[in-house]
Amino acid sequence: MGGTGPRTGYVLVLRLELSDTPGTLGRVTTAIGDDGGDIGNIDLVGQFGRKVVREVTVTCRNEAHAHELTAKVEAVEGVRVLEVGDRTFLAHQGGKLAIVSKLPLKSPDDLSVAYTPGVGRVSQAIAADPERVWDLTVKGNSVAVLTDGTAVLGLGAIGPAAAMPVMEGKAALFKEFADIDAYPICVDVAGPEELIAVAKAIAPGFGGINLEDVAAPACFEVEERLRRELDIPVFHDDQHGTAVVVLAAMENACRVVGKRLADLRVVMLGAGAAGIACARLLLHAGVRDLVAVDLGGVLHPGRAAELDPQRRWLMERSNPRGLAGGLAEALAGADAFVGVSGPGALPPALAATMAPEAIVFALANPVPEILPDEVPPNVAVVATGRSDFPNQINNVLVFPGFFRGLLDARARSVTDDMKAAAARGLASLVDERELDADFVIPSVFDRRVAPAVSRAVQETVERTGLSRLVESG
Amino acid sequence: MGGTGPRTGYVLVLRLELSDTPGTLGRVTTAIGDDGGDIGNIDLVGQFGRKVVREVTVTCRNEAHAHELTAKVEAVEGVRVLEVGDRTFLAHQGGKLAIVSKLPLKSPDDLSVAYTPGVGRVSQAIAADPERVWDLTVKGNSVAVLTDGTAVLGLGAIGPAAAMPVMEGKAALFKEFADIDAYPICVDVAGPEELIAVAKAIAPGFGGINLEDVAAPACFEVEERLRRELDIPVFHDDQHGTAVVVLAAMENACRVVGKRLADLRVVMLGAGAAGIACARLLLHAGVRDLVAVDLGGVLHPGRAAELDPQRRWLMERSNPRGLAGGLAEALAGADAFVGVSGPGALPPALAATMAPEAIVFALANPVPEILPDEVPPNVAVVATGRSDFPNQINNVLVFPGFFRGLLDARARSVTDDMKAAAARGLASLVDERELDADFVIPSVFDRRVAPAVSRAVQETVERTGLSRLVESG
Repeated sequence: MGGTGPRTGYVLVLRLELSDTPGTLGRVTTAIGDDGGDIGNIDLVGQFGRKVVREVTVTCRNEAHAHELTAKVEAVEGVRVLEVGDRTFLAHQGGKLAIVSKLPLKSPDDLSVAYTPGVGRVSQAIAADPERVWDLTVKGNSVAVLTDGTAVLGLGAIGPAAAMPVMEGKAALFKEFADIDAYPICVDVAGPEELIAVAKAIAPGFGGINLEDVAAPACFEVEERLRRELDIPVFHDDQHGTAVVVLAAMENACRVVGKRLADLRVVMLGAGAAGIACARLLLHAGVRDLVAVDLGGVLHPGRAAELDPQRRWLMERSNPRGLAGGLAEALAGADAFVGVSGPGALPPALAATMAPEAIVFALANPVPEILPDEVPPNVAVVATGRSDFPNQINNVLVFPGFFRGLLDARARSVTDDMKAAAARGLASLVDERELDADFVIPSVFDRRVAPAVSRAVQETVERTGLSRLVESG
Repeated sequence: MGGTGPRTGYVLVLRLELSDTPGTLGRVTTAIGDDGGDIGNIDLVGQFGRKVVREVTVTCRNEAHAHELTAKVEAVEGVRVLEVGDRTFLAHQGGKLAIVSKLPLKSPDDLSVAYTPGVGRVSQAIAADPERVWDLTVKGNSVAVLTDGTAVLGLGAIGPAAAMPVMEGKAALFKEFADIDAYPICVDVAGPEELIAVAKAIAPGFGGINLEDVAAPACFEVEERLRRELDIPVFHDDQHGTAVVVLAAMENACRVVGKRLADLRVVMLGAGAAGIACARLLLHAGVRDLVAVDLGGVLHPGRAAELDPQRRWLMERSNPRGLAGGLAEALAGADAFVGVSGPGALPPALAATMAPEAIVFALANPVPEILPDEVPPNVAVVATGRSDFPNQINNVLVFPGFFRGLLDARARSVTDDMKAAAARGLASLVDERELDADFVIPSVFDRRVAPAVSRAVQETVERTGLSRLVESG
């Protein structure tokens, strides 16, 4: 399935010594192009006698392709490969975050303000009025990106240390897209109780907790317990970030095909953490006919005994027509498919049994349930998790703005109303003139995204009395 | 005792509207000066008709003084006080730290390197070889500044939220003095077991843990357990930072008075966490005659039953002449006094019973055991914790460089040898020409300090086989 993977994962940096005879660089670029490498920058490092040193950046399909391509370049006459680098690893060297002081610390006077003795009065002020911690420390702008490393990307339980690069990247995105100071907390714990204990312990210093890459079903219990036991918002991005983008994209896809959420027959394939969260939010937003399918087939009452509490919860609220069977039975005549399952799980022939003007969200990553160029003609709108196809369902559209809104409103917790509002705020950025089958969701680089999501969340927090800035009730 | 406190704690910012008649500003500055206020900047904010708005920065003795002074200024003819600010609180607004991304995040290509899909390969590399987390994440340059808020400065158990300003300040100092990325982790826990559990849980993402402001005796158990159970260095700064500076200053004070550590009779007043750590390191460095005194008098075998394990440990290694009694008995003829106790605990008359050319370290803060201008003539060298007297014993001289050395050497743990080496490195910065009774320890702004401490620690880590960069044994 190599040909269907995204091409952005492996960027090779080759430092080459070329003999200074005409055509040498041409032979190199031809060798790279013939082997399917995508050439980016070619930088001149220097001229040394009759040799020229250049650095060539090449996007490869994967690591094996990079090795193959390097060998091809080495075989070109007049070329010597001096160094082979992997841009991603070079970039991650030393980590991706830095912590800086906002105050100068150059004189005894500076020290007396930022540290002792001045800081003592600030601490006393917080001890006397605990709410002042929000203004007088980083808490009001800080988020813990918390993971136990049990479900990192698609890699599984690789542990807290190996999760660090992902959580650092997430923290960097928080900063870039919403000016939030987020810090990765990757914890070594034995099970959900310990994860809950650590989250509660570290809460005093953070304004919110972004749970990340915690495996199901532990993630449900962890989030629910923390929601009840903490006074700061907790948001499991793998569930709710995905759900918010899916709802936003679904609302706009409905606009494209002229259907209403309330009339939609939706099939959800995959009933893990993200699937259940998507289903829950779609139901909250007005979907009435949702059929969930997992490896055991359609969730229906006959399977009650085998279902965990979350699937049972979903079973009780879905499948109004009482379907049984598998994906084929669920899909016949369906208006929308949301896949959070695995590669190739939606065969084109099955997609063809859906209703006319069907909507397909194939979110398995990196290889989706169905590729956009494989869908049958009855499918009108396709979205994936991939950046190299239109309509990318990407959590980066949600979590920065969502937490910005939570922090600005000083939210005590997160509700489905906030998520639905965030989805509407996100969807509304695609106006009538832009709206198209290939454009149901804004780009992650659209600078209006985080403010729109933030505003929608903040208004909902304030309207529903969940801000700590006002006395609720 | 207000007059003996440091003057750097309260800096008032007054925004004043002055009538545009000659002499108004003069009357203001006179009023401030007459009341003992120390005028800093006077900024012109603007001219509005016949009024001038200025911002005047004034250092006051304390909060009461600031109120009094503001009233005096308000009473000046032609002056209206528009705003009264406290520079320390203004500076702390929003917290003192920011977290920034070291990588650009402006394009899909940037995202694919810093986040998915590129980051997946970095995580896999760490999962395959756990030691790579040191190079490929922030771990190798990061320190957790961890507290449970049970002994914050001299303020006691004010809790984790109120401890945040102190821990943020400490993190800022780590950055400024040693380019270390430190983050405050202020935890809400019930007792040492929970603190240990949290420290162990968060360890995968940090290269070291700086324990801070944890009350005795819990701090002993926490540090000892973490030393045994973690593979990253743990350093309780209140104990060992103080001990290292005390040893460095004591070595140089010995040079000033021409005595040797091994011949010194040392009295330690206060046997809390810092006192025990100072005593332990002085003994490690060669002091042979140390007498420790706490509220119950001299630590001696007759008190064994009432002593906690740490004091008993110290009792067994101190008091070689078998003294009993109190401070007076211990001090008679002593060469050095180290006080980590309380304000005014060393009456000048008692200091006068010490040996000629005595050394007095009066470290209680903000008001020392004895003020430098109160010592009798037999005292040759005085050091305090205060920045407004010579010879400031300040932990900032130690912890940044100490952790820099631990991180650069990839130390697995901290030993007394490393602390003694750090003290020697620090002491050595005062050369023969500079060495003087008023200059036994370098300034915290001496840029050679952190590199010297770091180098000494790093060499000791490597020499003693405690670096993870080489196979030990």
